Amino acid sequence: MATRYIHTCYRIVDPEKSIEFYCDKLGMKRVGEMHFSDATNYFFAMEEDASEPMLELTHNHGRTEPYEMGNGYSHVAFLVDDLEGTVAGLKSGGVEIALEPKTMTVESHDYKIAFVVDPDGYRIELIERGTMKVGNIVQ
Amino acid sequence: MATRYIHTCYRIVDPEKSIEFYCDKLGMKRVGEMHFSDATNYFFAMEEDASEPMLELTHNHGRTEPYEMGNGYSHVAFLVDDLEGTVAGLKSGGVEIALEPKTMTVESHDYKIAFVVDPDGYRIELIERGTMKVGNIVQ
Repeated sequence: MATRYIHTCYRIVDPEKSIEFYCDKLGMKRVGEMHFSDATNYFFAMEEDASEPMLELTHNHGRTEPYEMGNGYSHVAFLVDDLEGTVAGLKSGGVEIALEPKTMTVESHDYKIAFVVDPDGYRIELIERGTMKVGNIVQ
Repeated sequence: MATRYIHTCYRIVDPEKSIEFYCDKLGMKRVGEMHFSDATNYFFAMEEDASEPMLELTHNHGRTEPYEMGNGYSHVAFLVDDLEGTVAGLKSGGVEIALEPKTMTVESHDYKIAFVVDPDGYRIELIERGTMKVGNIVQ
């Protein structure tokens, strides 16, 4: 079988806040945890299915200092059906909005995106379904 | 339709080196590009298929300075069939190996991983297929 992408991993300070954000607000499911002596990995996916890409969020026990974001990693991205409504809902739920829904144009193609911020400061791109064109692929 | 994860994005200095690493070495396919006036986004996936998660690698034109990795983002992960063989092949191809294939044990479950490094210094986890257990899911 071919190599397959399965997860993106980043580090979080407060699992409760992350669970609230990724599950209650973005609609992901907690699909499992890995417990180490000094850390816990929390796994989230849209469906409880081995073929679904996951987020692996690592909580180093006892750490309270925010992580440094650097300037290399940028974001993870999700398709949503109703970008305006989704962002309005997140906003009223207290989520920080880094970019309000905006229509971008690249090579004469319009697509609609927004950026929100997770509890640790990671940027999450939300894209209106059906507007993202990558080569011959429309997402 | 449900919200869906579609890509993870990070920034690269030299697209040629990244293309060689992700395509020639990891076996991903270039599925498209987005050309902006000052940047190009390169998209990679395992299959040319809208349902496949992608990497979006952003090249800011003219930048030569390495990006700062910070300490928040950790890695992206891929399943492979033959971890030892895959890592040996990458190593002989000049890829930096951050962790040689190693059997880890968590909660009495063994899984086999390695870490390699991409041309910009991003860490890539490689996992022996069938050894990763997340909740009830085996990957």
